[in-house]
Amino acid sequence: MRRWNGWGDETFNLAMPEQGQAFLADRIGNGSPLADASLESVCARVPETRLSPGPELHDLIDTRPETRVRHARGQSLADWLAMRSGEFGVFPDGVACPASNEEVRQLLAWAAKENINLVPYGGGTSVAGHINPVDNGRPVLTVAMGRMNRLLDLDPDSQIATFGAGTPGPLVESQLRAHGFTLGHFPQSFELSTIGGWVAARSSGQQSLRYGRIEQLFAGGRVETLQGTLTLPTFPASSAGPDIREMVLGSEGRLGLITEVKARLTRLPEHESFHVVFFPDWDSARTASRLLVQNRTQLSMLRLSNAVETETQLALAGHSRLIGMLERLLSLRGAGEAKCMMTFGVTGSRQQCQNALQEARRTCKAHKGVYTGTRLGDKWAAKRFTMPYFREALWQMGYAVDTLETATDWDNVDNLLGLIETNLRDGLADRQEKTHVFTHLSHFYSQGCSIYTTYVFRVGNRYEETLARWQKLKTSTSELIVANRGTISHQHGVGKDHAPFLPVEKGELGMLAIRSLCSTFDPDAILNPETLVK
Amino acid sequence: MRRWNGWGDETFNLAMPEQGQAFLADRIGNGSPLADASLESVCARVPETRLSPGPELHDLIDTRPETRVRHARGQSLADWLAMRSGEFGVFPDGVACPASNEEVRQLLAWAAKENINLVPYGGGTSVAGHINPVDNGRPVLTVAMGRMNRLLDLDPDSQIATFGAGTPGPLVESQLRAHGFTLGHFPQSFELSTIGGWVAARSSGQQSLRYGRIEQLFAGGRVETLQGTLTLPTFPASSAGPDIREMVLGSEGRLGLITEVKARLTRLPEHESFHVVFFPDWDSARTASRLLVQNRTQLSMLRLSNAVETETQLALAGHSRLIGMLERLLSLRGAGEAKCMMTFGVTGSRQQCQNALQEARRTCKAHKGVYTGTRLGDKWAAKRFTMPYFREALWQMGYAVDTLETATDWDNVDNLLGLIETNLRDGLADRQEKTHVFTHLSHFYSQGCSIYTTYVFRVGNRYEETLARWQKLKTSTSELIVANRGTISHQHGVGKDHAPFLPVEKGELGMLAIRSLCSTFDPDAILNPETLVK
Repeated sequence: MRRWNGWGDETFNLAMPEQGQAFLADRIGNGSPLADASLESVCARVPETRLSPGPELHDLIDTRPETRVRHARGQSLADWLAMRSGEFGVFPDGVACPASNEEVRQLLAWAAKENINLVPYGGGTSVAGHINPVDNGRPVLTVAMGRMNRLLDLDPDSQIATFGAGTPGPLVESQLRAHGFTLGHFPQSFELSTIGGWVAARSSGQQSLRYGRIEQLFAGGRVETLQGTLTLPTFPASSAGPDIREMVLGSEGRLGLITEVKARLTRLPEHESFHVVFFPDWDSARTASRLLVQNRTQLSMLRLSNAVETETQLALAGHSRLIGMLERLLSLRGAGEAKCMMTFGVTGSRQQCQNALQEARRTCKAHKGVYTGTRLGDKWAAKRFTMPYFREALWQMGYAVDTLETATDWDNVDNLLGLIETNLRDGLADRQEKTHVFTHLSHFYSQGCSIYTTYVFRVGNRYEETLARWQKLKTSTSELIVANRGTISHQHGVGKDHAPFLPVEKGELGMLAIRSLCSTFDPDAILNPETLVK
Repeated sequence: MRRWNGWGDETFNLAMPEQGQAFLADRIGNGSPLADASLESVCARVPETRLSPGPELHDLIDTRPETRVRHARGQSLADWLAMRSGEFGVFPDGVACPASNEEVRQLLAWAAKENINLVPYGGGTSVAGHINPVDNGRPVLTVAMGRMNRLLDLDPDSQIATFGAGTPGPLVESQLRAHGFTLGHFPQSFELSTIGGWVAARSSGQQSLRYGRIEQLFAGGRVETLQGTLTLPTFPASSAGPDIREMVLGSEGRLGLITEVKARLTRLPEHESFHVVFFPDWDSARTASRLLVQNRTQLSMLRLSNAVETETQLALAGHSRLIGMLERLLSLRGAGEAKCMMTFGVTGSRQQCQNALQEARRTCKAHKGVYTGTRLGDKWAAKRFTMPYFREALWQMGYAVDTLETATDWDNVDNLLGLIETNLRDGLADRQEKTHVFTHLSHFYSQGCSIYTTYVFRVGNRYEETLARWQKLKTSTSELIVANRGTISHQHGVGKDHAPFLPVEKGELGMLAIRSLCSTFDPDAILNPETLVK
């Protein structure tokens, strides 16, 4: 069953190898875990519901405390601390699980009539507070889309599939695989996040280099709004004015509820493999990565860890003999202390993969890269969706872990990366606490790339102190990002956590445009209040 | 000098070979040309200007009749007939040529104060009535962006160039070439159209398969609006809410005047070549084209002519000996009467081009394609921007030529293509007139492709009759397109000519979204009235 107070399946646990524990203790000291609240104690604190649906809606809406607890929070670190401490704050007054467009329209009409806030809920994997209810005096109904999870149509010529918006990653892929297709959208949250959520929050997957971001995969669909049904027809491309799809992408529930997604597919590849190259220094590694994408080498994924992430990953990997041998080999070939690990994938026909691999190896070699084959790449592929479980393992040891991500142009990558890491590393110095910080680049574009930084710090002796540590790091770094040409989010969306920083990025007139759309579709601010724009 | 009443440079003429004349006469009968109005006679009919700029704007605004004539019309067939007959209808009251953002802001402020309609003007190449002034009682000032035509900045690492919005295609490329870069945006209007116009009307170039549409190339920039300056920052990608760039793309002057465009570049390729393959039948040809793009073969352009277009092109090419030999060879290899010509390009490193060429040849061969090398491809490349001059040659012979284009999903390509061609072919039967109709597919996507249909008909014995013939064909086919899952335009935008058909495509709520943006930025409808939305 799904964990009520953390990530994923409660029967699955990642253990931290001893060597990894020692590594972290060395860097930031030993942790001391905080006590978790129990589900029972939290359920006991859920207030009476303020919803009183009539008989026609009664069966659709679940107001039991446990259901409301399980839909109250996402997966940000603030959400985690709320769930672990039991200090949830606001709970939704009920959770509706509609099974049809008709039921979604009923819920919208009811919410408009009764002045109820609606919060759309996909996989509940937001790390930016998208699905957290707020207290603005109105009752809150969370609309969980999980029953609308089927492949509704597939056009094999146009390679377009229509899905219910609540279809989670594994169900998207398994239903397509039966027909010989893949969507190819693999965010780290893949196990739980949904295709409608990907569209609503402008998600990007690990193989976006081949398949594109959700913006490129989203061909059209259906949005139920308070003004009626918005149907987005599918065209391969169009010059007929502003693209309405692009207004729905990233709308985060403010315009309406996405109920159906038409997505662009690819035939299952003949071949796929993941390869690892080590570089002796960051400059060579970053340059090689930039050239791979600017030269249009047909890779399906690319990820470049900086020296500290490389060191951390090798230390936490737990295969000490293998890693030891590897490190001796790399050291002999010039990649020592400051080495940086690049993982890349090739996907397609055998011939395409062979060509791309040759091209990539040539570029890497020209920049001092040492190619090590597919062994570590296979490990990456095997564990690609399990990283979120790591938070649990660290938590048990008294550590909190979070990530921050942005994207910027190439001329600014080193500058912004340095600012982010330094700010996080020194951010708790006034508390005499250290932070362990490391970064990778992923999602490469000719223009720039995403910067994905992980930071680990010790929990405080109380929840309040732990939250304060996180808030300081998160807020100051977010300010730094938008002040220095970074987007507030490359792949996690805005939600409530990033909303204060959005105006710097969009500017006054950009915000005016977004607000005018929100108020046109939802003049009474019924839908997902305080998300995206305050 | 630029032709005042048609396409391009007045010293350049395409001659129609004798064989081509015979071909057309055989298909639709001999033409009988109409008499052209003179520039002098048109200038004499230009009314007094209604503008009276104060001294601070006086030097910026040209109210001479000839200037107003030269900025009154675009390049649609209706514009052509207006220019040739001298029946222009509405002229702008003056033409401003600002050289800076500051001057654009001055013009906006003046227009708002004096209640003057502003029409932004790039290269004047619209084929959908974008830049035609309308008579709604207000004076009209056309703002020609041609003085803002410089490369303002180039970031070689991020591969981003900043251009003045009025920079035309050749100046874009020549300024970039000096630095080793290309934008790679080559619409047929390349010679005259501007980078700002491409953004405003969502243009697509002949090599969009490699470089992307203008949507992919437009990284950000600057729009002067009546509410202030809208600055679009550059990010490689972002999940931070709806993308404001996508609201500016296709806004056709309704939100503001685009003054600066930041565009994504590519290094000049090591190699580029264009190749031609003939297929014995449409089915094989269309299937091969679809697979090339769905298999992600790294082509830089792809164009597939149907049998009538293939026949017409070979007949009009004028190299009768070469073509005769080719046809005998193809006939021997199974590509006879119904043969279809595919042209494709490979661009990139030598190795990439070699790999892509191999892959493309393999796919074509598997679908009965006969590869004929680069000779015809070279001819295509040499003439790629001269097709618009053909209208002049046909006009002298008493023929009118126009094109219609759309895009649709693969499952609908044959259906829609058939409907369009049949409707055009039979459209003048009530007048006992024939139309010569042929089509190519270009701009291929995994999901579908564009359909580009050319039609030639005899002019009537009067201008009114000629216009009536065109209106009947254009209107009835446009209705058919949007009623049958086609976009009203894949690459030419909406303008005034396509505006009546847009609501079918966008739906009521899509139109609501667009209208709300327009009225937010331009509540008094000062900017380019009746364009995009009525």
